[in-house]
Amino acid sequence: MTRTEPTRLPRLMTRDRAALDALLASTVVGHVGFVDDGQPVVLPTAVVRWGDQLVIHGSTGSRWMRTIAAGAPVCVSVTAVDGVLVARSAFESALLYRSAVLFGSFGPVVEDDAEAALDVLTERLLPGRIREVRRPTPKELAATLLLAMPISEWSLRVFDEWPEDPADDVAGSAWAGHVRFGDPPTTVHDSPDLRPDIPAPASVRAVTGIR
Amino acid sequence: MTRTEPTRLPRLMTRDRAALDALLASTVVGHVGFVDDGQPVVLPTAVVRWGDQLVIHGSTGSRWMRTIAAGAPVCVSVTAVDGVLVARSAFESALLYRSAVLFGSFGPVVEDDAEAALDVLTERLLPGRIREVRRPTPKELAATLLLAMPISEWSLRVFDEWPEDPADDVAGSAWAGHVRFGDPPTTVHDSPDLRPDIPAPASVRAVTGIR
Repeated sequence: MTRTEPTRLPRLMTRDRAALDALLASTVVGHVGFVDDGQPVVLPTAVVRWGDQLVIHGSTGSRWMRTIAAGAPVCVSVTAVDGVLVARSAFESALLYRSAVLFGSFGPVVEDDAEAALDVLTERLLPGRIREVRRPTPKELAATLLLAMPISEWSLRVFDEWPEDPADDVAGSAWAGHVRFGDPPTTVHDSPDLRPDIPAPASVRAVTGIR
Repeated sequence: MTRTEPTRLPRLMTRDRAALDALLASTVVGHVGFVDDGQPVVLPTAVVRWGDQLVIHGSTGSRWMRTIAAGAPVCVSVTAVDGVLVARSAFESALLYRSAVLFGSFGPVVEDDAEAALDVLTERLLPGRIREVRRPTPKELAATLLLAMPISEWSLRVFDEWPEDPADDVAGSAWAGHVRFGDPPTTVHDSPDLRPDIPAPASVRAVTGIR
């Protein structure tokens, strides 16, 4: 059995790549697991899809990123909590979620692709932002570690069901249903060192939730 | 050097237990990493603080939970994305976040504590819910695997800073500041099998964002 085959509730598992891409488009933070001296380590970082790759970045001074840059096996977990299934008992209640787990290893983005990969990261966080700011300098590019991992070995579980309460509970007086979360309301705050004649740009005003 | 000592940007690291508790109160999903046959695996699950322990639960049929129940070393990562630091360049821009990383191992919750631990989990998701639903049955308790891990070896990084743009960029015309996320708007949906005379209860109406 491979590690992307479900052992429980296989009906929740999907091989739908479009559903994976939708999750990666709605949730920017991934949790990257690796083995360090025999011990598991899990760290969060922005994970962005670029075609058939996941791209992450950090400082060239990041010890953990240098560790996985050498190709150590990793597991990247990306999760969205979409709400709560409120059943008529605590036992049948659950979170509504989408959970992707990807296995593989990261390698460095080749130098010729580095600037384009950084643009993909910036646009993922603030669409339109790259047209509002200057280009990265060679020094900034040199200080940035960009890593990519192919999207090949992955699984996706989507839990979005109505309560399955036993008949006794359905006949009772407890409520049941879904609480669903939308995009969080966002607020925009000028930097303390901002000149007062510079209004927040389109890219910033357009942002709603990023998770 | 221990694994909870920072190698980079040590100013972001805090030992403030109240700040850790606040993060655990705002973010319910944790990513649990363990080593399975030499490979890293990271899976999401609801992580709830009960005093000085983290509690997780699942079905007794869950293979991965049974694996870590035996005391394998784990790393639990809990992350909140609070917004975006929008600097005047892509390079200086970043996510605003709080990130807790806890090391240790899980063991079973003793039978006498199981029902109380389940109540803590339910109340974490929907405060007040346990007064609105019946008690768990012995059969339900027997089907639930409850695991606890002491909160002892942990680190917390809080990144919440204003842009540190170079003077040339500050003198330019690009905007800079924060975009901050609030609680996501929630919507409530009756279960298809709900009797029409049962309104959504206080616990459900009170929920805003759970992440």
